[in-house]
This record gives sequence, structure tokens and C-alpha cells, in this order.
Amino acid sequence: MTERSPLAPATFPDLPAIAGVTLRVAKARYKAWDRCDLTYVELDAGTAVAGVTTQSKCPSPEVEWCRDAFPLGKARALVVNAGNSNAFTGNRGRAAVEAIAARVANHLSCLPSDVFISSTGVIGVPLPIDKAEAGLDAAFAAKPCGWEDAAATIMTTDTFAKAATASAVVDGRTVNLVGIIKGSGMIAPDMATMLGYIFTDAAVEPGFLQQMLSAANRTSFSCITVDSDTSTSDTVLAFATGKAGNAPLASFDSSGADAFAAALSDVCRQLAHLVVRDGEGASKFIAVTVEGAESDASAHRIALSIANSPLVKTAIAGEDANWGRVVMAVGKAGEPAERDRLAIRFGATQVAKDGLAVEGYEEAPVAAHLKGQEISVGVDLGLGDGRATVWTCDLTHGYISINADYRS
Amino acid sequence: MTERSPLAPATFPDLPAIAGVTLRVAKARYKAWDRCDLTYVELDAGTAVAGVTTQSKCPSPEVEWCRDAFPLGKARALVVNAGNSNAFTGNRGRAAVEAIAARVANHLSCLPSDVFISSTGVIGVPLPIDKAEAGLDAAFAAKPCGWEDAAATIMTTDTFAKAATASAVVDGRTVNLVGIIKGSGMIAPDMATMLGYIFTDAAVEPGFLQQMLSAANRTSFSCITVDSDTSTSDTVLAFATGKAGNAPLASFDSSGADAFAAALSDVCRQLAHLVVRDGEGASKFIAVTVEGAESDASAHRIALSIANSPLVKTAIAGEDANWGRVVMAVGKAGEPAERDRLAIRFGATQVAKDGLAVEGYEEAPVAAHLKGQEISVGVDLGLGDGRATVWTCDLTHGYISINADYRS
Repeated sequence: MTERSPLAPATFPDLPAIAGVTLRVAKARYKAWDRCDLTYVELDAGTAVAGVTTQSKCPSPEVEWCRDAFPLGKARALVVNAGNSNAFTGNRGRAAVEAIAARVANHLSCLPSDVFISSTGVIGVPLPIDKAEAGLDAAFAAKPCGWEDAAATIMTTDTFAKAATASAVVDGRTVNLVGIIKGSGMIAPDMATMLGYIFTDAAVEPGFLQQMLSAANRTSFSCITVDSDTSTSDTVLAFATGKAGNAPLASFDSSGADAFAAALSDVCRQLAHLVVRDGEGASKFIAVTVEGAESDASAHRIALSIANSPLVKTAIAGEDANWGRVVMAVGKAGEPAERDRLAIRFGATQVAKDGLAVEGYEEAPVAAHLKGQEISVGVDLGLGDGRATVWTCDLTHGYISINADYRS
Repeated sequence: MTERSPLAPATFPDLPAIAGVTLRVAKARYKAWDRCDLTYVELDAGTAVAGVTTQSKCPSPEVEWCRDAFPLGKARALVVNAGNSNAFTGNRGRAAVEAIAARVANHLSCLPSDVFISSTGVIGVPLPIDKAEAGLDAAFAAKPCGWEDAAATIMTTDTFAKAATASAVVDGRTVNLVGIIKGSGMIAPDMATMLGYIFTDAAVEPGFLQQMLSAANRTSFSCITVDSDTSTSDTVLAFATGKAGNAPLASFDSSGADAFAAALSDVCRQLAHLVVRDGEGASKFIAVTVEGAESDASAHRIALSIANSPLVKTAIAGEDANWGRVVMAVGKAGEPAERDRLAIRFGATQVAKDGLAVEGYEEAPVAAHLKGQEISVGVDLGLGDGRATVWTCDLTHGYISINADYRS
């Protein structure tokens, strides 16, 4: 495994247990490794589910399976396989998904459609059904484990286990949310990126859970990019066990719905940031904020154009205040922009304004800012009220090293 | 300067002189270097001009200047400054362009609008007018030079001088075309990418020259990408001196128009390929062909999605037949695609078909193909007749080294 990302948090967070959620891990040995690579989560009866998945035109059979089950709104189990994405594997891939669902359904006496499944890893190799079944049997027999084991078991090229938590007061009760996530490359937005799972003991109607998750996705997972590449398997699922005993949240008219939605957004944003912090080869965490655009959507597209630009990302890796490359990335976005109104800042220092460099701007604070690990790039287009922030990381030799030698 | 690209041709080509074109170079010293960095081309009276320029929303004043002059269709001179792009420099940048045009117009007793100007290099630093004027005066006094000196003088991060030639029989006379070009990073399509100049002794009406150049651009400069980044200064200009004495080409009904258009396309494609061969850090020249798409435009977008994918480009750098990443890039393009009809080849070997790996395909020819310098990736979507080819290079440590340390 690659060295732990320099942007990783110092420690794994303290996380509460979520009533109605039981975690187990096992060794299916999808690859020639001696680590747990199958995560099995049991969810008590009555658990609601919602999800967002990749916008790839070539999704994995797991993604199709989950999509088919979302409308039913119920979940009893989650299985996550690490080391093999099972994507682009034709009917054999589909058969593996059905076999997993059947085995869990038999174990729990539930419907196959109550079983949610994700797989992550190399594309194009059918998931071996015998290994999946043996792994499941081992998981069924295993002792329950904690969040850190589950978060570590879903990892592939990740360099650290990722989780986040938040809580809210709903209907007079404190409800908890815990999320785990994996992902460090093939990360791009316009979709739920990577594999993420959020568990809460709150009672929430599935339709409203979907509404809140979709909204949270738009300001979290849809606002990060590592390399502009989009996985065939990306999935974020939210499970609400209802064990907190609150009156089920059904709409924003429900008591505590706003607080819960805010907590869900908070967890999603934390998880999204953790993925960027584990971006392949990342040495800097970069927030790109675009203001003054004609609309929020336009600001979002310009921010992504900047965040995906290899030239901007390499400049920041080199700690170079090369704002010309930011101009370039604004210009190529294809969105309304006027050169002579454009303003650019690094950190708190305005470096360009009204279409040219700010005469004699102080270089020392800019250089100091760029030497840090948390970089902020701001663009003001001076056209309207549109605003967006996206998060990314720099592009370094580490990315090349990891990706020019991944499959072998 | 970086080492010469391993993909560079062995030698600079033999090129004919073009009657009516006189080349000179000089040292304007736009940077602290001791090399020629100002190219001055005199064009005899009667020269027609056409051009295509960047689609950036933040173009340089040089680009705006050229665009304003295209409709007039006449050219007497070209000035190319290397080392400073003069982009994003506000009114001071515009003043530099006007000063250059005025000095040349005075020297040649022509209109300022007859003078075409390009600048390439760092963004955001106004082009120093005094250096430009002194450089021009030196160029006016210099002895004429050959194509190789001119092609070398327009270079910035390029590792070799680039030129191409073709000829055609028009109206019973052989006409010649010679093109020179620079560019190796910040190269993306949907526009004329980089700075390129094509000279011919053929007589061509400016409107028809524009029509042919725009068409040639669509299958050459618009089909290459190095890093998906789009310059603020990209410009391709074509100059036709008419010295060959043919009856001017005015439309495709003119005798020899088809032959001339083919020769122009040939030069454009050669020049475009040379830019990819000098892609920053490139070690492989990659042709991506997409067939079976719903339309040519759709095929073009999918081919670009593949050619711009950092994961595909790093896999090829690593000589890894990771076709899963090609699937990923097809899926993220947002264009019509059906997983279960998709076929992928590396070189001549089909590696995936009908939505899954070809059982037992021969790995040896694939491995041998990927070890070479000329890589071919083919995708058949199985949906329609749409077809496109784009050209790119791999993504290596060299790209990071060059771009994380460019400005300083």
C-alpha cells in the first residue's frame, strides 16, 4: 500500500454505534492478499434506504441492482466487495450480484431486493461467485466489528480509512449519523462519486430520505474532483433504521427535518472532503470558489474547469502563484466571462483584478499560503450572483506513479 | 531546455521556399535568454489570409487583433513573439499590439490591419513595448533566414522545431504549401490549438481560403489534445501569396481546388501530429478511433473523453492494457453507449467485445504493441455509423516535472 496521505486526519474519529446496524467483515480473498475485503452490514427490519449512483453510461451490475431496488425503499443488508469492481463483465457479473443477494436473502429470510451490493476494484474481471459465497459465509459467522474495521475493509487504493459523524435533535430525540467512504482516484462529479454509506438511527420515510440525500449530494460529492475521471461503480447509500423512535420524517414540514437535513449534508461534505484528502498523489487540499457568475450552475462549471485543469493542479503542486493558468481555465470553460472584469485571489490576496495583474501585490503572503496544505483559489467574474465551491487536490508525481502501475 | 521528445522526427524536413514570403528572426530578449524570440515574416502585396483562433472566453489582445483583421482578407506581415503571451494584460497589452502593428505598417507602408501578430509564453505580464520595437528594428535589418530558424524562433517549451510541407497541381501549376507550428502543452481542441502558420504560393480568394482552413482545422487541430487545457492565444493562420500565378481559387468549382484543399488538410494534420509528438512529457503517440457511434460528433466527444482521461493516459504510459479505463472513459462521456455492445481493441487485437473481455485473447501482441511508441486504441460502440479519430500522448512524470516548475 502507498504511504498514508499527508492530508489525512491524524486519527480515525470517535463514532457512536447506530442502533439497528451490525457490521461484520471477512476475507473473500478477491485478490491475492491477506486482508478483509468483504463488508457485510445487517440492518434491522424497517430500515429505509435512498441512494445516488454514477452517471456513467457503462455502470456496473451492482449499480443497476441498487437502482432497481431504490424505489422499494427498504433495506436489510449491505455487501461491499473490495478488489474487483465486477464492472463490464456481462451476464457473469450480473449472476454474481444475484448470487450474493440470494445468499443473504436466505440467511436473513428477506427479499433479494432488500440486499444492497457494491463492488470496487479492477474493471472487466467477473467477481468470482465461489469466493463471494465463501466470504459471505465467513462474514455471517464472524463477530460484529466496529466502524474502523468496516471503513478499512471497503478500501482499495485508499491510504486511510474514512468516516464522519453528525447528530441532530429530531422530535425531541438526538439522532446520530455515521458515514464511511472509500475512493481516491477515478473521482469526478456530476454524480455520487466513490462508494459511500451513511447510517442513521433516525426514522425517515424513504422518499424524503432520497430527496435529502440528492440535495446533499449536489453540494458535496458532486463538488469534488481528483482526476476528472468517473467510475462505473460510484454509489452513495443512506440507511435509516428508525431505532431512535422519532416520528418518521416525511417532509420538510416534519419536526426536526431541517436539522436532520443539515446533519446529513454535513456528513456528506465531510466524507467528500476525506476523499479529496486521499486523492491519489495529493499533497494539497484545494478549495476553488467562483463568485459573480451568471448563475450557480455556471459558477459550478467554471470551478470544475479550474479544479480539473492539469496545468492549474501542477502549478499548485509546484507552489507557484501562476494565476495565468486560472485565467486559462476560466476561458476554456465555455461559460460567460469577461476578461476585463475578472478578479483572482490566492488565499486572501488579490493577485489580478479588472483584467490584469494587481500592481505590486504582496507576494509574501501568497507564497506562504501556497506552501501550506490548504489552498484557496478565488475567482470573481463580476457578472452576477452565481456562486459555487468545488474541492480538489494537486497533481503530482505520486498520481503518475500510482496510476501508471495499478493493474499489475 | 528539456530534452528532445523521443517522439520527434529524426530530422527537420526539407522545405521549398515560398515565393512572396521572406523570413527574418531577431532577439527581442522577452526573457533573460540569448536566443532569437521574434519572428518577422514579410508577405508580398496581394497576399490573402485566413485564420482560426482559440475559443477561450479570455483571449489575448493578439487574438482579438487578428480576428478583427480576418474579414479584410489581406496580409503584408506576420510578427510572432515568444516568451510572453501578453494575455490578460488589459489596455497595456492592447497598446503593445498596436505599437507593433504601427511600426511594421510604417516600415512597409501598409495598413496596420495588414500586420498579423501572435505572442506566446507566460500569461499576465504585459509585452514590453520597447523590447518589441527594438526587436522589430533588428529584424528589419536582419538577413532573411530559412524555415528552420523561423520554426525554432516561435518555440517556447517545445523540444524540437516543427514544420510540414505538401504540394498540389492547381490550374496546371505546382503550388507549394509550408507550415510551421509551435506548441506542446496547454493543448486542447475545439479550436485552433497552438500557434501555426501556413504559407503557400497559390492564389486563393480569402473567403475560400477561410472555408478550406476551417474545414481542415476540424480534422486536424481540433482532433488533438495533450492535457485538455486550452490556451488564451491559440491561432492558426494561412497566407496565400498568389505568386504561383494560377487563376485564383474561389470555390470548389475552381480547377485544382480539391487538390489544394487536400494538400492544406495534409499540412494541417502533419502539423497537428507534430504538436502531439512534442506533448509535454510524452513518450507515446496515441491514436484513439471511435466507430459505431450515433454520429460523427458523438464519436468525436467520446474519443476526446478517452484521449483526455488521466487514467487512460497513465495506463498507456505504464504499457498496461487496462481496457477497463477505456470503458470508464466511454461511460463518462455522456454520449449514447450500450455496455453490452461495446468492443475495444489495442493495436489489432480485440480485447473486449459484447460487454466483456474476449476470453483468452492473445496478450503477447497487445503487450508488444503497448511497448512501442505508436499506440492505437479502437472502440466500436455498435450503435451507428459515427466515426472519429483523435490523437494524444501519454501522461508521464515528465509532464509533472515540466509543469510544476514552469514559471520560475
